[in-house]
Amino acid sequence: MEYFSDRLIQAIKAKGNPCIVGLDPRLEKMPTFITSQQYRMSHVEAIRFVIANYHEIILDIISPLIPAVKPQIAFYEQYGIPGLLAFVDTIKMAKERDLIVIADVKRNDISSTATAYANAFLGTTNIFDDKLPIFDVDCITVSPFLGRDSIEPFVKVCQEYGKGVFVLVKTSNPSSGDFQDKILKDSQEPLYSTVARAVNDLAKSIIGESGYSSVGAVVGATYPEEAVQLRKLMPQSIFLVPGYGTQGGTARDVLPCFNKDKLGAIVNSSRGITYAHKDNNISKEEFIDLVYQKITTMVDDFQVTSVK
Amino acid sequence: MEYFSDRLIQAIKAKGNPCIVGLDPRLEKMPTFITSQQYRMSHVEAIRFVIANYHEIILDIISPLIPAVKPQIAFYEQYGIPGLLAFVDTIKMAKERDLIVIADVKRNDISSTATAYANAFLGTTNIFDDKLPIFDVDCITVSPFLGRDSIEPFVKVCQEYGKGVFVLVKTSNPSSGDFQDKILKDSQEPLYSTVARAVNDLAKSIIGESGYSSVGAVVGATYPEEAVQLRKLMPQSIFLVPGYGTQGGTARDVLPCFNKDKLGAIVNSSRGITYAHKDNNISKEEFIDLVYQKITTMVDDFQVTSVK
Repeated sequence: MEYFSDRLIQAIKAKGNPCIVGLDPRLEKMPTFITSQQYRMSHVEAIRFVIANYHEIILDIISPLIPAVKPQIAFYEQYGIPGLLAFVDTIKMAKERDLIVIADVKRNDISSTATAYANAFLGTTNIFDDKLPIFDVDCITVSPFLGRDSIEPFVKVCQEYGKGVFVLVKTSNPSSGDFQDKILKDSQEPLYSTVARAVNDLAKSIIGESGYSSVGAVVGATYPEEAVQLRKLMPQSIFLVPGYGTQGGTARDVLPCFNKDKLGAIVNSSRGITYAHKDNNISKEEFIDLVYQKITTMVDDFQVTSVK
Repeated sequence: MEYFSDRLIQAIKAKGNPCIVGLDPRLEKMPTFITSQQYRMSHVEAIRFVIANYHEIILDIISPLIPAVKPQIAFYEQYGIPGLLAFVDTIKMAKERDLIVIADVKRNDISSTATAYANAFLGTTNIFDDKLPIFDVDCITVSPFLGRDSIEPFVKVCQEYGKGVFVLVKTSNPSSGDFQDKILKDSQEPLYSTVARAVNDLAKSIIGESGYSSVGAVVGATYPEEAVQLRKLMPQSIFLVPGYGTQGGTARDVLPCFNKDKLGAIVNSSRGITYAHKDNNISKEEFIDLVYQKITTMVDDFQVTSVK
């Protein structure tokens, strides 16, 4: 079975950049040329139709250019069952376009409960006499607060099914320091470094031919000096870097997340690509042009050959 | 608008105990008298039918006796869309029986993403021209790793809609010490105490007439000496205490989680009530007797009048 990390590294090399686009369906931010089509339908039909339509336009623009997409499940869950049907549609459309799908779910729980989440997103579930894939994405994000036994069940399923996880280590939000930055008495280092060491231990159990692990880390672009340290603590983990663009991180800030091989990180932009328009009355042609312009600008910022 | 905390305290007083039952649908652990009915149906129909049937039997036994139930969403998500339809069914059935519904979802994210989760479970979502409730439970669990700005959006929605959150502070699993127990250099206290102080700050913004906050804390039953400390740090927060029964916590271990008013905590049991049978070939009558016996034993352990 091929490792997730190898598939991701191959896709980065094939596309020539490590850019990924976050998919956050928010009806009120979508252009009216998409949402206006809902008036003939029930809410259930309309939510699914509008979100699929919106994603189809975006995926058609970005899929030739980038290796992966990151649907954020919160924005699907907010629309209930129709939203989750749209989540399933989105995964299918992205896979049809050969994009790697990283579901940003930040799940966290222990033992059999963590295994249930891992089965839902990465593995298979026993349903009566069958063993069936459920959401079946390539990779998810997970949260480490409950400790190692909240991450290990995910790693186990990754090993079995060639999937990946990115563990939150140092996030990009203003309050990320509340707990993550606290200096620990024993180690004299911040909590995020201790989390990083635990991630690195787990990462070693699932290293692909590329030299990279299928256990990665979420490391915010807004704290470059911390990225330098974390790169050393987790040399074989791929970093998922949010916060580029709208959260204030620049391409220069992200550079420390890469290794000397110019690989080892993927950089996410969500709103900066998909909601760059200022007016929902933008035409379809203008919207397509704008998304194309934003994604090509980002891709140019991060061409693998130009990462120094 | 009535506060979640007041509704929960009233329910505890009305039922005379603080026991809650975790609902974890796992087809392979259910008695065959329930699962055998699936052979005539498609998977989608069968998952929903079997889970509803199973929960209906359990809810009919437990609803006269206890104040609340705690569906664990991981076990629904593992069955995909049909599982999530069963989650919706379960919430409906529990509410029809006047049970408070605490969805154990351990969600965590920031800003607009956290708000999307809060809308999904506790508030309403703008869907075209309507503002609609989605899963609409009474309360959820949330995880604090991302810091205060990952909890505040949930608190805001709780204030607006009379709902509640329980923030993970010190969990009951073996590895909970990996990060939660680390002593911080500045405060010379464990990380969980710092989390507790943040929870207490947020809790103050949403105190009901009962004197309790709608911002509660998850505090494991397996660490009683820590519960003593945490009770002091979060005097107005209700504790959600997992780990009673199967995770090794006893009724005595849970006592420090209560205040002198003999209130201030709810105690969860999942498998110990709903999967107490050793053989899936148990008859319907035996299963009903066993669930009744297990829940009455737990309720006797925790009668509000007998908490010392």
